Amino acid sequence: MINVTIFSRGITETISASELAKARARMHLEDAIVWVDLENPTEEEEKEILEGYFAFHPLAIEDCKIDRPGRREHHPKIEDYDEYLFVVFNPLKWKVSTESLDTVMQFSTYQLSAFIGHKFLVTHHKHSLDAVNEVKVRCGVQHKLMSSGPDYLFHLIVDRIVDKYVPIVEQFDDVLDEVEDRIFNNYNSVKFSDILDIKKNIVRLRSIMVQQREVLYRLSRGEFNLISQNETFYYRNVYDHLVRMAELVESYRDVLSGLLEAYFTVNANRMNVVMKTLTVISTVFLPLTFISSIYGMNFEFMPELHWKLGYTFAWALFLGVAVTMFIWMKRRGWLNE
Amino acid sequence: MINVTIFSRGITETISASELAKARARMHLEDAIVWVDLENPTEEEEKEILEGYFAFHPLAIEDCKIDRPGRREHHPKIEDYDEYLFVVFNPLKWKVSTESLDTVMQFSTYQLSAFIGHKFLVTHHKHSLDAVNEVKVRCGVQHKLMSSGPDYLFHLIVDRIVDKYVPIVEQFDDVLDEVEDRIFNNYNSVKFSDILDIKKNIVRLRSIMVQQREVLYRLSRGEFNLISQNETFYYRNVYDHLVRMAELVESYRDVLSGLLEAYFTVNANRMNVVMKTLTVISTVFLPLTFISSIYGMNFEFMPELHWKLGYTFAWALFLGVAVTMFIWMKRRGWLNE
Amino acid sequence: MINVTIFSRGITETISASELAKARARMHLEDAIVWVDLENPTEEEEKEILEGYFAFHPLAIEDCKIDRPGRREHHPKIEDYDEYLFVVFNPLKWKVSTESLDTVMQFSTYQLSAFIGHKFLVTHHKHSLDAVNEVKVRCGVQHKLMSSGPDYLFHLIVDRIVDKYVPIVEQFDDVLDEVEDRIFNNYNSVKFSDILDIKKNIVRLRSIMVQQREVLYRLSRGEFNLISQNETFYYRNVYDHLVRMAELVESYRDVLSGLLEAYFTVNANRMNVVMKTLTVISTVFLPLTFISSIYGMNFEFMPELHWKLGYTFAWALFLGVAVTMFIWMKRRGWLNE
Amino acid sequence: MINVTIFSRGITETISASELAKARARMHLEDAIVWVDLENPTEEEEKEILEGYFAFHPLAIEDCKIDRPGRREHHPKIEDYDEYLFVVFNPLKWKVSTESLDTVMQFSTYQLSAFIGHKFLVTHHKHSLDAVNEVKVRCGVQHKLMSSGPDYLFHLIVDRIVDKYVPIVEQFDDVLDEVEDRIFNNYNSVKFSDILDIKKNIVRLRSIMVQQREVLYRLSRGEFNLISQNETFYYRNVYDHLVRMAELVESYRDVLSGLLEAYFTVNANRMNVVMKTLTVISTVFLPLTFISSIYGMNFEFMPELHWKLGYTFAWALFLGVAVTMFIWMKRRGWLNE
Amino acid sequence: MINVTIFSRGITETISASELAKARARMHLEDAIVWVDLENPTEEEEKEILEGYFAFHPLAIEDCKIDRPGRREHHPKIEDYDEYLFVVFNPLKWKVSTESLDTVMQFSTYQLSAFIGHKFLVTHHKHSLDAVNEVKVRCGVQHKLMSSGPDYLFHLIVDRIVDKYVPIVEQFDDVLDEVEDRIFNNYNSVKFSDILDIKKNIVRLRSIMVQQREVLYRLSRGEFNLISQNETFYYRNVYDHLVRMAELVESYRDVLSGLLEAYFTVNANRMNVVMKTLTVISTVFLPLTFISSIYGMNFEFMPELHWKLGYTFAWALFLGVAVTMFIWMKRRGWLNE
Repeated sequence: MINVTIFSRGITETISASELAKARARMHLEDAIVWVDLENPTEEEEKEILEGYFAFHPLAIEDCKIDRPGRREHHPKIEDYDEYLFVVFNPLKWKVSTESLDTVMQFSTYQLSAFIGHKFLVTHHKHSLDAVNEVKVRCGVQHKLMSSGPDYLFHLIVDRIVDKYVPIVEQFDDVLDEVEDRIFNNYNSVKFSDILDIKKNIVRLRSIMVQQREVLYRLSRGEFNLISQNETFYYRNVYDHLVRMAELVESYRDVLSGLLEAYFTVNANRMNVVMKTLTVISTVFLPLTFISSIYGMNFEFMPELHWKLGYTFAWALFLGVAVTMFIWMKRRGWLNE
Repeated sequence: MINVTIFSRGITETISASELAKARARMHLEDAIVWVDLENPTEEEEKEILEGYFAFHPLAIEDCKIDRPGRREHHPKIEDYDEYLFVVFNPLKWKVSTESLDTVMQFSTYQLSAFIGHKFLVTHHKHSLDAVNEVKVRCGVQHKLMSSGPDYLFHLIVDRIVDKYVPIVEQFDDVLDEVEDRIFNNYNSVKFSDILDIKKNIVRLRSIMVQQREVLYRLSRGEFNLISQNETFYYRNVYDHLVRMAELVESYRDVLSGLLEAYFTVNANRMNVVMKTLTVISTVFLPLTFISSIYGMNFEFMPELHWKLGYTFAWALFLGVAVTMFIWMKRRGWLNE
Repeated sequence: MINVTIFSRGITETISASELAKARARMHLEDAIVWVDLENPTEEEEKEILEGYFAFHPLAIEDCKIDRPGRREHHPKIEDYDEYLFVVFNPLKWKVSTESLDTVMQFSTYQLSAFIGHKFLVTHHKHSLDAVNEVKVRCGVQHKLMSSGPDYLFHLIVDRIVDKYVPIVEQFDDVLDEVEDRIFNNYNSVKFSDILDIKKNIVRLRSIMVQQREVLYRLSRGEFNLISQNETFYYRNVYDHLVRMAELVESYRDVLSGLLEAYFTVNANRMNVVMKTLTVISTVFLPLTFISSIYGMNFEFMPELHWKLGYTFAWALFLGVAVTMFIWMKRRGWLNE
Repeated sequence: MINVTIFSRGITETISASELAKARARMHLEDAIVWVDLENPTEEEEKEILEGYFAFHPLAIEDCKIDRPGRREHHPKIEDYDEYLFVVFNPLKWKVSTESLDTVMQFSTYQLSAFIGHKFLVTHHKHSLDAVNEVKVRCGVQHKLMSSGPDYLFHLIVDRIVDKYVPIVEQFDDVLDEVEDRIFNNYNSVKFSDILDIKKNIVRLRSIMVQQREVLYRLSRGEFNLISQNETFYYRNVYDHLVRMAELVESYRDVLSGLLEAYFTVNANRMNVVMKTLTVISTVFLPLTFISSIYGMNFEFMPELHWKLGYTFAWALFLGVAVTMFIWMKRRGWLNE
Repeated sequence: MINVTIFSRGITETISASELAKARARMHLEDAIVWVDLENPTEEEEKEILEGYFAFHPLAIEDCKIDRPGRREHHPKIEDYDEYLFVVFNPLKWKVSTESLDTVMQFSTYQLSAFIGHKFLVTHHKHSLDAVNEVKVRCGVQHKLMSSGPDYLFHLIVDRIVDKYVPIVEQFDDVLDEVEDRIFNNYNSVKFSDILDIKKNIVRLRSIMVQQREVLYRLSRGEFNLISQNETFYYRNVYDHLVRMAELVESYRDVLSGLLEAYFTVNANRMNVVMKTLTVISTVFLPLTFISSIYGMNFEFMPELHWKLGYTFAWALFLGVAVTMFIWMKRRGWLNE
């Protein structure tokens, strides 16, 4: 689906792809600014716009096209082709939005490719992206918005993309808190494979963040002629936002390694309790059984057996040994777990 | 609350926000220096001063405003808007000041935003900050203080902020010492979740230190025109101070990882003691019980049973086995724990 | 085996090595481009071409020749000898292609040495390389291909080499998934030495990737005069591809360290189950055996022995103790594993 | 205590502080070189010399004064105040020099502050420092020594300071060797808290080394005008020496982490021995006791009980079971520990 | 021992140290190149050559002299004294060459100091070094060899030194393989202190490699005027070789950390086997002993005791319980270890 938004002589209109050619002439005359958004385009549409109309470099077009179902999306990058910048970003989206611990971190990465020229912005993406749609709506409402040029327009999209990271990144805070809580209070409900999953997701998120940050850093430091000095402030702002989130994600790694240690410790402590129980039981009953088995011996001459109070004496022994053992263990702190 | 301090013709006065406009004219004439402090300002006050009077860049104003209750404060940064520097710092404060191990590390981070111009300093913060108040008082007393310019004035505030880190950072020394002491001498009183909390706090503190240090480094190396060469010595001094504290915090991480190892070791040693006890008890009583159960058998022809000294013989056996076992275990060092 | 492909006056031909000398004259006249491919060459062939015809630097020739059976291949590098670039790459190949976990990661590294001049490309390799063969075939079909020069030609080979990494790198994904699956579901089938092998392979792969990436980075940033500015785009593209794979390999290390933790945890859990069973059995039967041994004592005066319901009483005791123990253990969660 | 050494017209003399003012005049006339050493000075002395006579920057003076009892000394640093360099160093000294493992590593850090000018050197330290005293003595003996200027003079002091690190750094080698020896041969004598102490000391030593090295690096690379090109060779030599020691300290960290692993391994092995003993004892005696308890049953019809050789048969069973168990365990290597 | 080799007018001769002075005159006239090799020199020889004849800087001479028995050799470094380069290298040599695992890694580091001038090379070493001797022999045979200058000559020595690292570095491969093999197949023969020794040796080797590499890097990048542009290719080649070995050594660290994990795992598995055995034995015999002790009770009224098949019934019980337990444990996979 091709969606063309054009700004000229103070007016922002949406035109059809077929009118684009006609519009071209106008553009040169009037300094019009055009934004071509390709959402899940057909191969013909791609050919027409990217190869035909704009004649972008084949390598950049190839990178756009990677974003096909069943393929890995391209990682964030930026390339300067003099006439235009080619940028790839990875918006995030929740795959499912249930509330359970197991599925809450199921986020997907998508690919947004963009060509930023002097008077045009071309965006290309397989999936419908909220960030793009929202900016599109704003353009329709605020007619002057596009007058700040494609670099400003693209900053708006990037800003929205980064904003949408926030709930996903902050979700980890809750997830890690819940895992910590479960480890200390409801150990049996923690599955180690869940922790492993969280770890994988944090690693993935961090890697996306770092790459994106790199791209934004280059956009914000005034390295490219196509980004006017004035706009770099805006990119720096987005960059700043991303840096904060990247640090958050980084800190999650520390927290997670702490949780793993907690997990192992709680596990070891539970083991200790089990072993202590075994030891307490054995320490008490092995001597008792020994004593009783003594008086089960069949020797002819065992004076105790014939005592009137022999049996009472045996019980006194049992109690004496048991109490001694308990006191000894109590002192060593084995009975108060 | 807006608080305006103005220095002109050798006199430092406090004026109301409404007089500021009038003062402006004066300023240009007399080279007056003005410090506007916004403490927990209303939205109107922010609008009037930041947007209206000084007309700061919208992005910087937005960063100021992040400091709202229930929101994360902005991390330290510095930005050069040519006409002024925009700086964010994170003062620290104890949330509660009880003496117990569990609560002692409850410190909060706040946000102080500042705009440093040639003739003005604007500070913006949500919470009442001791560092700001103390400098305000000094300005009232030492009339010449403000004559050194906004860069010197701001250095005074930053210096106070960093000074106030000291007790919080040094507190960790005591906390870690106490944890170490407890691990070795009163193991049961150590909760692993406490160690985890200390770790989180150290990570947090370190991250603040590192960011702050970065900002001070840039202030001290003479990168900005608005900081006169002379003042960089003072900023370098504060930077120096912060570096020492950051190193202290860094060393805490090493100490903490040592404590974790100590914790695991003590835990393992306690487990060993339990297992050794079990083994000692079993090693002594299993053979004894076996012997006594032999003489509990009901075979018709068991010569020992009819011996006069059969029972005595059995006791001799018991004692012999027990003593042998004890000697054997003594030699292996199992009995002296 | 020497294989010479020559492009001149719009035609691409394959000539014999002996015609090369004659071709030389032509080359100077007509701006011909020549590609000499030495596949598993004899020492005479090496001498003739590398030392004789092209007179390359002895050190570069020595590095080529390292690629002998039973020797370690040379690691990737690039050297600028003004007249030509000397590049070494390490293509990968599966040693065996069985499907079992144990052998699937048996990949080998080979050595491809190349000299890139203004008008010539010399490639040298011990083993038949698919990447080289494929480009050779393409040159025969697309006559214009060689007209873009040796730098473009070499990029084609490198591109194919890097493409062939993909299945090997991605195989690890499956292998790690299977190991994780086995750890959690079929623990006994995991051999620790297998995990160690995977680790070694990942380390090896990563080291190759990093070195290769470094070479490609230098090729792509326009550092060398012999790589025309235009071609750097193509090298950057390959570089980009390699970076993505290097990151994948890097992430495998994280995954593997997680798997090791999972392995240890599952191991510890299995140990816990064993110990819990021991403790449960002992906790139940040690007291029971003590009770029954009491009534096995031979005291003359033991009233219970003469009760009508003595035996029933004993069983009641047995059941009472057993049930109490079970309830106690149930509450502590020891029975639901 | 102020100690002034002055070199002029080829003669090195010691003068009193009060003569310094007079000497000043001379200095300008004769190109005299003066070294003022403040050892544990009173506040008045500091004021007179640092603030009055030389008028150093207040911030540098403040850094000098930190060196008070009960305060942390300042860490190494260097600052260029154009007219003079301000340098802080941390000499080391053993607190006590007993031979026991526990106290041997009790070294202290002191603070030496120095101002290096064109014609003067001012050193300031709280404690009597051997390095300073030795150089003072040499100056008295070798009259020409001071003629090489304050930069050479200061190098002599620094050289002595670094030399004095050697025995402290090398002591760790012995300590670590002894700990390793104890872990493998006399495990019970190793206290984990000792290892923790060694770790803390190594971390501390390393941090001092690194900071000092940084200062020396800057002194040796010809960054400062006040250090003549010729003297940088000497500073490079000291720097070199320090680098070697810093590497030694770094390697101790590796050794220590190996010792920790050894400690845990030895601990685990001892645990294994205990568990194996328990298992061996149980494996032998549980079946034996079961057999003997069988023949302790009171069934009316138990043929074995009436056999002539019943008791002998029982003993045969006992021996058979015991021997079988022993052979089985022997084969598994459990009996040779 | 002083050994002087001189090349002039196309002839390479060996002269005595005393002729050196005479040779000097010649040298200036004829562009002669001289190589003075000091092997284990006396103090007088050192004084004569280093201080007297060449008048090297005292600091460089001091660094040479460190190489005394019982002292640590100097680490690799390079210093530019304008007139000459001062280089220190650390050749390696096996202390003993036995084949056992314990002694195979006993390599020593030596010190080779060299002064590289325009027309002279001075080498200084305590021990007889194969690398030096081999080059000396080659100089005698290939008369033209020295004509390439001292920089080329020194490269030959360094090349030989690095070549001699190869067998020592590759030995670790075998050692690590053997340790891995032993861990998995002959666990009891692995001593943890051996692994610790290997670790120490790898750390030491790596540190030497890294320092040497640094020196070679500086020699190869054309930083020094005394190394002609042409020779840098040769140094780069040696550098390259060293880099490959340093990477090998680096990879050994990874392998070793894997081996440690393997060691701990095998240890834990052996512990598990022991515990499982204990649990299996207890699980079978504790219930059986309980049953038999029931029928050892002396109650008057125990119907089973009077059954004709009472004893048979008991055995049925024993077998029933034992078989049930075995099946249960079989299912949990405890019996197939």
